[in-house]
Amino acid sequence: MEYVGTAYAGFQRQPGKVTVQTTLEAAIAAVTQEQVRVVGSGRTDAGAHAAEQVIAFSTRSALPLDVLRRAINVYLPADIVITSSAEVASDFHPRFDASSRVYRYLIWNRPERSPFWSGRAAHVKARLEESAMNLAAKHLIGAHDFGAFVPATGKSAVRTMFRADCRRDGHLVAIELEASGFMRQMVRSIAGTLIRVGLGKLSVEEFGAVLQSGDRARAATTAPSHGLYLVQVKYER
Amino acid sequence: MEYVGTAYAGFQRQPGKVTVQTTLEAAIAAVTQEQVRVVGSGRTDAGAHAAEQVIAFSTRSALPLDVLRRAINVYLPADIVITSSAEVASDFHPRFDASSRVYRYLIWNRPERSPFWSGRAAHVKARLEESAMNLAAKHLIGAHDFGAFVPATGKSAVRTMFRADCRRDGHLVAIELEASGFMRQMVRSIAGTLIRVGLGKLSVEEFGAVLQSGDRARAATTAPSHGLYLVQVKYER
Repeated sequence: MEYVGTAYAGFQRQPGKVTVQTTLEAAIAAVTQEQVRVVGSGRTDAGAHAAEQVIAFSTRSALPLDVLRRAINVYLPADIVITSSAEVASDFHPRFDASSRVYRYLIWNRPERSPFWSGRAAHVKARLEESAMNLAAKHLIGAHDFGAFVPATGKSAVRTMFRADCRRDGHLVAIELEASGFMRQMVRSIAGTLIRVGLGKLSVEEFGAVLQSGDRARAATTAPSHGLYLVQVKYER
Repeated sequence: MEYVGTAYAGFQRQPGKVTVQTTLEAAIAAVTQEQVRVVGSGRTDAGAHAAEQVIAFSTRSALPLDVLRRAINVYLPADIVITSSAEVASDFHPRFDASSRVYRYLIWNRPERSPFWSGRAAHVKARLEESAMNLAAKHLIGAHDFGAFVPATGKSAVRTMFRADCRRDGHLVAIELEASGFMRQMVRSIAGTLIRVGLGKLSVEEFGAVLQSGDRARAATTAPSHGLYLVQVKYER
């Protein structure tokens, strides 16, 4: 599924708030007349987006898979759509079974803000040196304790980063990360720190040192959620 | 300047409606304390967008050009921005002095709608054959009476089309037209008719015959305004 997260208090159900999950569950209920519980592959923050989120739910509906999917889309608002569907084993779990996830962080990089990227990319006015950001991002690859980039939870912050790139396309700078798993605020905190590299306030080597230190105080401010996209969830067979 | 037109009743001032022009004039007035009248290079329809619109106004403000521009941007909403500014001769007219304009018409072309292109591209579910659309578009090049594509006004519908292309980038199909001038509904009517070519309902040759006929009844329905972008205005020196 895909969604523009601007109107939602994140993916996950929260009391008294409109979230992507509650909106999905309401649309599914309208079609199946069942109270379903949707499980997502990852929780996205309030205002963050998904170019590919994977969800699962159980239903007794006898509707053919594709008819069911299109019927649910009719009840979903314009900012959410289910693009494809498949029947899965009853023990399939979109989050626990994922082997890796890909997140993208978009930055609109010119002095003037963009009407077209408003709410869909972070705005950095000063010119970013994306090649330095790309070099710094390479430090992230491999198995690391990402404690410098996440709030302390008492749990292990060790994850494996498979890919970390930063590229420019015109005024748009994109950071793309693929890892075995991501913790809360991890992509946004890495993005905020890479932006400091791009602005020349932190060297490529210093970025590596921040990662190694595991010290949250040395990472930069968490970049805003509206630049964040979940873009792919991968499952090993 | 750039704008996302979704929230506006078009560019041009209309009594009792919020338009791009009235929004601009209010922002300029807030900075200069003058009642200014903005002149645009072309009128965009309600819901249509601009990646480059050129406007002009006269002011007695003593503010340096760039300071004035940035101050106006502070008063403009997130969906409108002035990207650059220049001092011009007092007889400069953004519309009459333009030598050509470029419009783009965007079509989101897959069965499922897109949350990201909602309000920003027309949605055509069936697969479009963009190469046929591109061939048909070539009929438009040169000086023609475009009467088949515009409501009758009693005035000449002769314009010169310099460029007419249709390309695909993934699920997005873009029609791009550059002409000496465009009349009301012209791009949207050409787009609607090219979409019929892309669907195989009209041949490349029949598209040429529609243009030659000058018969509005033979053109297809006008495509929706939210797929339309003014992308460039050119001025000969």
